[in-house]
Amino acid sequence: MSTREDRLARVALNWLLEPGHLIGWEMVRAFGAPEALWRILHDPSCHTRTRNTAAARLRAGDPLRTAEEKLERAREVGARLVIPGDAEWPDQVADLRAIDLHGGPSRVDRDTRPPLCLWVRGPLPLAATLTRSVAVVGARAATEYGNRMAAEIGFDLAGRGWTVVSGGAYGIDGAAHRAALRAGGVTVAVLACGVDRPYPAGNTGLFEQIADAGLLVSEWAPGEDPLRHRFLVRNRLIAAATRGTVVVEAAARSGAIQTLGRACGLTGRVAMVVPGPVGSAMSVGCHDALRHQPGTRLVTGAADILEEVGTIGTDLAPRPRGGTRDRDRLDEESARLLEAFPAGREVTPDQLSARTGSDPRATLRRLALLTELGFITARDGLYALARPSRDSP
Amino acid sequence: MSTREDRLARVALNWLLEPGHLIGWEMVRAFGAPEALWRILHDPSCHTRTRNTAAARLRAGDPLRTAEEKLERAREVGARLVIPGDAEWPDQVADLRAIDLHGGPSRVDRDTRPPLCLWVRGPLPLAATLTRSVAVVGARAATEYGNRMAAEIGFDLAGRGWTVVSGGAYGIDGAAHRAALRAGGVTVAVLACGVDRPYPAGNTGLFEQIADAGLLVSEWAPGEDPLRHRFLVRNRLIAAATRGTVVVEAAARSGAIQTLGRACGLTGRVAMVVPGPVGSAMSVGCHDALRHQPGTRLVTGAADILEEVGTIGTDLAPRPRGGTRDRDRLDEESARLLEAFPAGREVTPDQLSARTGSDPRATLRRLALLTELGFITARDGLYALARPSRDSP
Repeated sequence: MSTREDRLARVALNWLLEPGHLIGWEMVRAFGAPEALWRILHDPSCHTRTRNTAAARLRAGDPLRTAEEKLERAREVGARLVIPGDAEWPDQVADLRAIDLHGGPSRVDRDTRPPLCLWVRGPLPLAATLTRSVAVVGARAATEYGNRMAAEIGFDLAGRGWTVVSGGAYGIDGAAHRAALRAGGVTVAVLACGVDRPYPAGNTGLFEQIADAGLLVSEWAPGEDPLRHRFLVRNRLIAAATRGTVVVEAAARSGAIQTLGRACGLTGRVAMVVPGPVGSAMSVGCHDALRHQPGTRLVTGAADILEEVGTIGTDLAPRPRGGTRDRDRLDEESARLLEAFPAGREVTPDQLSARTGSDPRATLRRLALLTELGFITARDGLYALARPSRDSP
Repeated sequence: MSTREDRLARVALNWLLEPGHLIGWEMVRAFGAPEALWRILHDPSCHTRTRNTAAARLRAGDPLRTAEEKLERAREVGARLVIPGDAEWPDQVADLRAIDLHGGPSRVDRDTRPPLCLWVRGPLPLAATLTRSVAVVGARAATEYGNRMAAEIGFDLAGRGWTVVSGGAYGIDGAAHRAALRAGGVTVAVLACGVDRPYPAGNTGLFEQIADAGLLVSEWAPGEDPLRHRFLVRNRLIAAATRGTVVVEAAARSGAIQTLGRACGLTGRVAMVVPGPVGSAMSVGCHDALRHQPGTRLVTGAADILEEVGTIGTDLAPRPRGGTRDRDRLDEESARLLEAFPAGREVTPDQLSARTGSDPRATLRRLALLTELGFITARDGLYALARPSRDSP
């Protein structure tokens, strides 16, 4: 089969069956996309309900012609199609085939197979952008507290070179994206509609900024509408694409908590929740998840998040009450910088750069990390070794 | 040995060695209190450091005469001495002999043996009062949020017949006690000084109220001062006497978190924490415990707390998003009350009392519980069966 045939068939199957379709994905795995498409369209022995699903959509047009049109539309809006095997395909989304949702019987809990293809808009390679990524999601009707927490977390993650992933909604999603952009970092919006369809319209400017500096990603082809059901299907991709999902605020029944559940059901993804004041309706879902969703971790900021998802050493969160300050757990460059400090005397970043022969910007970044970890102290642009805390071992 | 001799020896040993003393407690277990006292005072082969500790105190007086004076002073202030074997001795504190603190090397982590005796002031029997009890502890410098949460929890626990246990400090401790008293319930203050020594003085009125309606309890004899070190030793008793410890607010280094650690180290005690807004210094210790202290449970109110410590059925916390409403898990009286409801029609509490032949006050209490559990709804003093929630099974 030609690659072009494969691509067209995947777009056609997504259009016929909707992304995440259980039988559709199994058939692609068994036969490849072109033959799966052929069987669904022409083989009377194929799974009846799947054929019926496809038949309903067929009244709206020919699947392969529609796929051609979608690809043409994508070219017009500066979007591209990425499929498994492409260099920028994020292989980790294949983990969705083994997601463990403890038997939810609803359609959205069945329709959780991996994506067949992704539409992408933006200047960065998708897979590499998602390698070090964290999802920051939460309530649309976020409180001032929630918006502030999302912004802090988005800013700090992006500032440390982590990609922020979220939906495109008002509230927490938007606050996280905006803060990541403000930090000069990378943010990815995973949409439940075409990457050419800003939704909600109030975030149009934000989507344009993301398309310029980050990525807009969707399983739905250009022109597709943000149907209600699609958001819940989309959520599995947010959970699977990232190393962990952080819920900042969530009411009792919340899409963000559903995304968190997807992260819990996936091997190797961390489910994280920011607590809030008891009594705030926007923290009820958060506290409930921390009480009842096994494995969910409480986090209070980027340092905690990176402790959960990060490589030990480069992203070690400081314990607020002293605790470990083990130099052995630092990455090599940070450890070398720490060794360059003179005892009992303050130094400038430039002096340290000269001593270590490191790039001044990298030095500044590591100084911030070492300060946060409590190894050194900062005052008026001067840095010094911290005294050991009283309860360090 | 006479009981009186045993009592005096225990008081004397506490005075000589301070409560919780490891060797002192082991010697009482091995030889009984009178012989343990004799050996420490007169046997040169006895543990040297323990003899030295006692010798330092001996300069201030004769131990048995001091014990007599303490008992006389207790009679004057309306306090009594309770020792193991007495009807009102709370046997659960013996669990302290097996507390697992993961090897803290500080003195307070060694001095965690069970109490030799307790001084009690108040009209209730100690053991029975502590059978269904929860410790509510936290920061002295509590915020308005913390004080409100402590008051809500103290009020709701006491209103459901649970004893609130706390220290006597400003902030969370005082808020919990006051709310329990307001609810007409029982509260116990465990002090680090004599039960005749109101500390802090600003809580004098509160202590008098507690001595009238609840209990003041201490390992330190009447007249003893609230020395700094004693608070940390006292905390182990709060953790051991109760079914669980709830920390409402706590800064990064906090006595309340130490109490929580004691609860974690004791078999069968639940360590619980109320979350708060990230960024509040008074919640830093809480969030840190939820992140790093294994087994710590997040709770948002009395319902959650009773779900953790209570008998399943009578104290089942409602899930905020539907969840279980299994009548089989109700206690018998509440189930009978529920069955007495007519279908599709509102009734008054009096009608229900008449139907079930129950005490009207008990009916009101159970109606509150059933409402909170979501079985029934309340409107303008009328009650009706709740409709099944959408996601109930």
